[in-house]
Amino acid sequence: VADTQLIGLDWGTTQLRAYRFAGGEVAESRELPAGILSVACDGAAGFERAYDDACGDWWRAAPSSPVIACGMIGSAQGWREAAYVDVPTGVDALGRALTEVQTQRGAILRIIPGVIARGPLPEVMRGEETQVAGALASPGPSGADAWIGLPGTHSKWVRVRDDRIIQFHTFMTGEIFAALRGHTILGRTMRPAAPDLAAFDRGVDVARSPLARAGVLSTIFSTRTLGLTGALPAEAQADYLSGLLIGHEVAALDALITERSAADTGRDAAHRAPIALVGSAELCERYRRALHAFGHPPPTIAAGATARGLWRVARSAGLVSEGAP
Amino acid sequence: VADTQLIGLDWGTTQLRAYRFAGGEVAESRELPAGILSVACDGAAGFERAYDDACGDWWRAAPSSPVIACGMIGSAQGWREAAYVDVPTGVDALGRALTEVQTQRGAILRIIPGVIARGPLPEVMRGEETQVAGALASPGPSGADAWIGLPGTHSKWVRVRDDRIIQFHTFMTGEIFAALRGHTILGRTMRPAAPDLAAFDRGVDVARSPLARAGVLSTIFSTRTLGLTGALPAEAQADYLSGLLIGHEVAALDALITERSAADTGRDAAHRAPIALVGSAELCERYRRALHAFGHPPPTIAAGATARGLWRVARSAGLVSEGAP
Repeated sequence: VADTQLIGLDWGTTQLRAYRFAGGEVAESRELPAGILSVACDGAAGFERAYDDACGDWWRAAPSSPVIACGMIGSAQGWREAAYVDVPTGVDALGRALTEVQTQRGAILRIIPGVIARGPLPEVMRGEETQVAGALASPGPSGADAWIGLPGTHSKWVRVRDDRIIQFHTFMTGEIFAALRGHTILGRTMRPAAPDLAAFDRGVDVARSPLARAGVLSTIFSTRTLGLTGALPAEAQADYLSGLLIGHEVAALDALITERSAADTGRDAAHRAPIALVGSAELCERYRRALHAFGHPPPTIAAGATARGLWRVARSAGLVSEGAP
Repeated sequence: VADTQLIGLDWGTTQLRAYRFAGGEVAESRELPAGILSVACDGAAGFERAYDDACGDWWRAAPSSPVIACGMIGSAQGWREAAYVDVPTGVDALGRALTEVQTQRGAILRIIPGVIARGPLPEVMRGEETQVAGALASPGPSGADAWIGLPGTHSKWVRVRDDRIIQFHTFMTGEIFAALRGHTILGRTMRPAAPDLAAFDRGVDVARSPLARAGVLSTIFSTRTLGLTGALPAEAQADYLSGLLIGHEVAALDALITERSAADTGRDAAHRAPIALVGSAELCERYRRALHAFGHPPPTIAAGATARGLWRVARSAGLVSEGAP
């Protein structure tokens, strides 16, 4: 592993992923259950240990390689707080604003800042800015106005233009789904089962129908009443609820896209910006189906966006000089 | 207590409230933590015991008094399932559809049916139909089209006309608030404090502003980001979130009212149906503030609606013949 050019860490709340780059590509990667929630209780020592577990051996074999990290490791609860960069922003601005941590074993860890959009409803991201940087280097959504969707516990929808983040919106869809299933009456009648994408589509269809005018606080109750009336099996209820929630999210996104398109380009409301998705294959498939139901063209799936983004920010900061991985 | 005319039970999921009527009024009432969730595990014996604790002494002192009950006691998880009555329906139909349970001690318990609105998103209620019957006898919302709001764990908004339930909508606002506070990241930064109605109003204002177009799945994240940016103290975050959720509920209700008003009366969208509220004073005050912010005239607060509704249904069933309590 003496050929290491860069070590990149995607250090989030629950997971720590490490990438070793060589020859301009990801040569090796690891995943540890060492997110900041599980290591922060030991203070700096916890971060040092997790860091060493993740990539200490790689760095000692190639001690000239820079180490860069993105994610919640730069939050107030992380190793060192990395101040947010304001929108609009791009890869260059991220690369100029790295926060350095001198580790005990010698390496300097450089933390990529998060991004903030100030205003009456502030928006923040940490980690997703790096995934967006990677997605923007993928074929697909570059150029004029496009949207990058990052589904997950908190979905982010990021409006990009000319390789820059213009604005973004967070939807707590994934976390709300888990809270509804685990801690409300809706979960009590659900029975675990294999994914039921027909039930998912049924939920999406409700969210894009006139019935959705009652809002998501109301439509979700149908998960229970359709069960009570024998119209939705217990095994299908979780996926139906998933479709309802993601459908309401896409409906709101649609309103935002239409508004922005009308404001920026003067085109009619039917204008559809290109969309790219970054996330797990299973979640991306759900969002692809929902976007299709709402009449969007098929989204691009940007694979490997995190690693590509870590590389791009490191390159813009002058830490590496080779081509893109 | 030999003057008892009627014994009424409001037997819900977590609580059992008992009313003794005499001289056409509530002469006495009790509240027991004997909701169906806590007694159903013992089967019929559990219900018998809770029933006897609640009103056995009243009945033995006046064994000719009828006993009537509303609420989840008539659900599939209750003592005996009382089939739903379909909308549109009124007090007379409820009184004709009582389900009888012969108790071991001799009394016949008569359970008021719930109400169902069938359709692609079915709606059900159990207990609220009795509160609506009571509210309809109160000064205020009777006559032409009106809406009765029953805020709670699951808020119900019931469209009534000429003393009948025409349609209704459930909003899981209360249960979602509890799940968000107890089981998502939003709760982690909240600090308990005295009610902060200014923070509540601030949440309502967001929900009725153009920012609400991103939908409630998105706007609620501002509870966290306003805290992160120092714009919302930890002590104010719970009430801000409460205002956001109730605001989104009232916004959706507004859309439903406007739509119904336009369809039924041909009047313009500014038409405002009269509104009555049934619920705890604290919750009714929150909904009153939110309705005011959305431009509604002050709602009537229908106090004592449950007892009045139990009496009305009993009277329509011929169980009592005196005047209203």
